[in-house]
Amino acid sequence: MFKLHGFFRSSAAYRVRIALNLKGLAAEQVFHNTYKGEQRTPEYLQLNPQGLVPLLEIEGGGHLSQSLAIIEWLNETHPDPALLPTDAMQRAKARAFALAIACDIHPVQNLRVLKRLQTLGIAEPEIQEWGRWANEEGLAACERLVAAETGPFCFGASPSVADICLVPQLSNARRFQVEVSRFTRLLVAETACKELAAFRNAAPENQPDAE
Amino acid sequence: MFKLHGFFRSSAAYRVRIALNLKGLAAEQVFHNTYKGEQRTPEYLQLNPQGLVPLLEIEGGGHLSQSLAIIEWLNETHPDPALLPTDAMQRAKARAFALAIACDIHPVQNLRVLKRLQTLGIAEPEIQEWGRWANEEGLAACERLVAAETGPFCFGASPSVADICLVPQLSNARRFQVEVSRFTRLLVAETACKELAAFRNAAPENQPDAE
Repeated sequence: MFKLHGFFRSSAAYRVRIALNLKGLAAEQVFHNTYKGEQRTPEYLQLNPQGLVPLLEIEGGGHLSQSLAIIEWLNETHPDPALLPTDAMQRAKARAFALAIACDIHPVQNLRVLKRLQTLGIAEPEIQEWGRWANEEGLAACERLVAAETGPFCFGASPSVADICLVPQLSNARRFQVEVSRFTRLLVAETACKELAAFRNAAPENQPDAE
Repeated sequence: MFKLHGFFRSSAAYRVRIALNLKGLAAEQVFHNTYKGEQRTPEYLQLNPQGLVPLLEIEGGGHLSQSLAIIEWLNETHPDPALLPTDAMQRAKARAFALAIACDIHPVQNLRVLKRLQTLGIAEPEIQEWGRWANEEGLAACERLVAAETGPFCFGASPSVADICLVPQLSNARRFQVEVSRFTRLLVAETACKELAAFRNAAPENQPDAE
């Protein structure tokens, strides 16, 4: 049994919830409200010096941070079903797509950065516009990265780490009022994902700590 | 023979240069001055819709973006020497360390974000302070992530993807006037890396396009 430290609203925790569900692995969830800074208590910082969720505690000892590292580990230790394409080149493209979200969109529009903008005296409408910009520009590139890929998922007939990153990010994009309807290929993948209970059950609104 | 699209100053391209050198793989370098926006030409956007460096073109066709995806691909297709620890848990920790830099430090202090701050009317000293903050806070967490790990490298006796991300980020941190001397464990790893020609030859100042 795993213990997953997360927060219903955290897209990075959402990714790990999806991955655990796809693998059919159960996890006890521990929630840290990041709006209230609950992930920065001395006790939690002992587990994760970054003061971020998610963190996965592993039965028998050990814990892992960083959603993509956790997903790679889950995929290596519980290979079925695979969360990466079989072909090395396609695997690299799926990872690149995931990183385009996890590096170049998500951290730039995350609470930590938006709060920092606030301390610089940036007004709320411009902060919202910042979040919109990061999502809009990033997802437009993502749309092109998978435009020529066979669907319905980002990379083929089964969900991969690319879809696991995409679905939570599209939720964020909508919160920032991004007009996502033009990302037709991304929406095909999202629709396919939402047909799977593994994705639906991982959604923020279906978590016990959802407000 | 590979073709690497990069820029001497890009830390993400620097990571791939190190990885290629560690693997003993030669690459023709193509330079895009990101200060001048040369990575956003229509031709380059065809190759990489994100408009970012690095991008690795592979002989015989195909190209890959995102430094960490490229490094994973290089490691899978050219396994020797390994750029990830053998043990699954240590491998996850090395990846998490790399992601703590590649997701949570680098993009937050990258040129794209600093330029955006400029357009919001933020003054230059506060922009520099933003870059300092992102590096300082991020590297302090990284220091704790490896504090208990056997050295001299971040994770043991040979360099991994963690060191490949660390060395370029420490350069950035110094440019933002971060007092790095307190990161004693990170500096042990950096010193071990700098003894290797693979790291030295990849350094920004040793690239043909260095200013």
